[in-house]
Amino acid sequence: MKAAILTVGTEILFGEITNTNTVYLSRRLNDIGIDVMYHYTVGDNPGRLAEMIETSLRDCDIVITTGGLGPTQDDMTKEIACQVMGDELVMHDDILESIRSRMLAYKAVMTDNNIKQALLPSRCRVFYNDAGTAPGFALDRKVCEDGSGSDRRQWIACLPGPPKEMTRMFERSVMPWLEELTEGCLVYKEIRTFGIGESDLETVLLPLIDGQTDPTIATYAKNGECSVRIASKRSSREEAASAVDEMIAKAKEYIGQYIYSTEGEEFPVVVGNMLMSRNITIAAAESCTGGLFGASLTDVPGISAVFDRSLVTYSNQAKMDELDVKAETLEKYGAVSEQTAIEMAEGVRLKAGTDIGVSVTGIAGPDGGTEEKPVGLVYIGLSLSESVCGEKDGMTLCRKIDRRIKDRQRNRRHAVLSMFDMIYRNV
Amino acid sequence: MKAAILTVGTEILFGEITNTNTVYLSRRLNDIGIDVMYHYTVGDNPGRLAEMIETSLRDCDIVITTGGLGPTQDDMTKEIACQVMGDELVMHDDILESIRSRMLAYKAVMTDNNIKQALLPSRCRVFYNDAGTAPGFALDRKVCEDGSGSDRRQWIACLPGPPKEMTRMFERSVMPWLEELTEGCLVYKEIRTFGIGESDLETVLLPLIDGQTDPTIATYAKNGECSVRIASKRSSREEAASAVDEMIAKAKEYIGQYIYSTEGEEFPVVVGNMLMSRNITIAAAESCTGGLFGASLTDVPGISAVFDRSLVTYSNQAKMDELDVKAETLEKYGAVSEQTAIEMAEGVRLKAGTDIGVSVTGIAGPDGGTEEKPVGLVYIGLSLSESVCGEKDGMTLCRKIDRRIKDRQRNRRHAVLSMFDMIYRNV
Repeated sequence: MKAAILTVGTEILFGEITNTNTVYLSRRLNDIGIDVMYHYTVGDNPGRLAEMIETSLRDCDIVITTGGLGPTQDDMTKEIACQVMGDELVMHDDILESIRSRMLAYKAVMTDNNIKQALLPSRCRVFYNDAGTAPGFALDRKVCEDGSGSDRRQWIACLPGPPKEMTRMFERSVMPWLEELTEGCLVYKEIRTFGIGESDLETVLLPLIDGQTDPTIATYAKNGECSVRIASKRSSREEAASAVDEMIAKAKEYIGQYIYSTEGEEFPVVVGNMLMSRNITIAAAESCTGGLFGASLTDVPGISAVFDRSLVTYSNQAKMDELDVKAETLEKYGAVSEQTAIEMAEGVRLKAGTDIGVSVTGIAGPDGGTEEKPVGLVYIGLSLSESVCGEKDGMTLCRKIDRRIKDRQRNRRHAVLSMFDMIYRNV
Repeated sequence: MKAAILTVGTEILFGEITNTNTVYLSRRLNDIGIDVMYHYTVGDNPGRLAEMIETSLRDCDIVITTGGLGPTQDDMTKEIACQVMGDELVMHDDILESIRSRMLAYKAVMTDNNIKQALLPSRCRVFYNDAGTAPGFALDRKVCEDGSGSDRRQWIACLPGPPKEMTRMFERSVMPWLEELTEGCLVYKEIRTFGIGESDLETVLLPLIDGQTDPTIATYAKNGECSVRIASKRSSREEAASAVDEMIAKAKEYIGQYIYSTEGEEFPVVVGNMLMSRNITIAAAESCTGGLFGASLTDVPGISAVFDRSLVTYSNQAKMDELDVKAETLEKYGAVSEQTAIEMAEGVRLKAGTDIGVSVTGIAGPDGGTEEKPVGLVYIGLSLSESVCGEKDGMTLCRKIDRRIKDRQRNRRHAVLSMFDMIYRNV
């Protein structure tokens, strides 16, 4: 089955918004074995929108649109979809009722515009919107293949533009519809890894990727991390889920040491949940990352139960004041050294009285590197209390990273991920 | 002049990459008065690419492509552009020479693939690539308007896919070419604001926006900030620049109090440069932002000259230990209060011995709010030394923010921007 994704909205053509809906839909459709052939974007113009829907369906079975479902004059996706697919808008009383009760709950007044949202194509399948007021829908038409005499069906599925409404509607309502359409139940999972590049990951997994049609297995790189997406389509959900789980077990044999989640969770969430579930308290001492580790960990709601503090000691004076790093250590080995990283991690753990202390010191760049200590050199320290590591008086580990990359942002981000990795592997 | 943007690459259709090139090109083309009518994406397939170029030119004067210019078998944009526009690839000796010297500088071996990159359409205008090896180019064709008998010219401009190469090539080579094509010199600037929403901004600026054709003026919202882009196209660069500057002066009359940059710079850069140029040292005390302020400020290279430390005191104990916040204050007013914010800012300034101390404490959410202290409530403290404010023993200010927004990420980001705003307005 071949699909096109059509984004409707003049603001996209102005470059006001990055089109993340299309990225999301592309992944999810590929996951379930639907080939995405084209992306299109068109403005809020009836003639061009109609023409673009026809273009989209030129050699695809289905076009999924986002945007233009709202109640204002700019919004015309419903009308044009009807025009192209040969249907008309009628009042759907059940939708009207659900919008009315939604407005009531928000103590808002029902306007003509709200009523207009209950107008939907007469023979459509409705997708309810539980994050907003504009419902989505799917509509089909029969087209005659030229000459052959046989009919072919084509579909349009129209979803709202706001990403939160769109993704929710897609997962809850569009997915089951696509399952019916493609006659199968679809399950996918995402394995997240750290410490291996995308091309290495692909090479290592080649025996699994090669010749595999179901489950499908594909690698993705983003922000210095690589993930593996595994998807299966079977006649029952249980069968698909167990096929995915089997493939994950196989993948673990090849890349087990790099995996930190098989549920698509991000590193701060995985480490944060691990610490919270085991009630292990943590403090951090940061230098080159400037607070990015603390900022990432505190993205996790509820983390205050275990996260005590992060001391961002940018100057040498701050490292001595706050973390009791010795002046001799800084003088002899420098601020970017194994010795300083170790003293920082120990210093913050003892000061905060937490179970673990993690530290980072490095040269993020783009300047400030030397022959001996190049840009990209980073040391991560991890100090563990007796209760965590079992050693009397605890112990402190250090990891050296030497990437020779000049990019400040990438080096900082990689350093933070390395801190999470260091905790994940050793606690 | 009407334009389409065509992205070439199967990885985009898989959802592996977010299409930021299209956002960039859309803005830049709109800036200079070229109407972007459509976005298209197609995979690395010769037949579909050719068809898509024809579709793009159906009712546009120019199509700008990105991607598919590399040296591998997947890359076919050059060949297909020639096919559609009626030209052929020939060896460009000057390009070959520049690639050879580039490879020599990197001590890399010249391969057949590198040589292939010097093959370009015979009658194209070449865009040199000084960030990579694949050159770009523009090519035209004449089309007969049906019936009228008069000729119309159409253009294709092919740029490389990697954003760094594409943006550099666009600014250095494509812009001047577009200026020739549209017969005018183009200048644009971006005003960045904080503290006003997009719809308010638009309403306030309406007298300037309404009926204005040159300079054009448009508002954009992104990540809790709003910016205003002003562009002018005139017969000389000086004339365009002075038209833009005049419009900026007018805009200042309406929104002066919200502006922090008229050069499109981000808040951390503006504040960081201000502190560095005046040699004002700074320390921070963060709670709900978890380190995000320090992380943002230390994104600015060279900031170590003035940034001393940021103490992320998540627990009450950490606030008392690190910042000398009084136990009574925490007990009487709570951690999220004006009093605590003030003691945090004073505490970190005195401890670090810096000229200013900035603090933040709040309830980021999504949970943890009460009737009295709802999610979204944030206090920002700013403590200034005598040398900065002129008052004996210095002074400390506090700002209360009460946004009633449940979104943790938005609240944290807004709190960080408010800290920068507080410094920018008061130092």
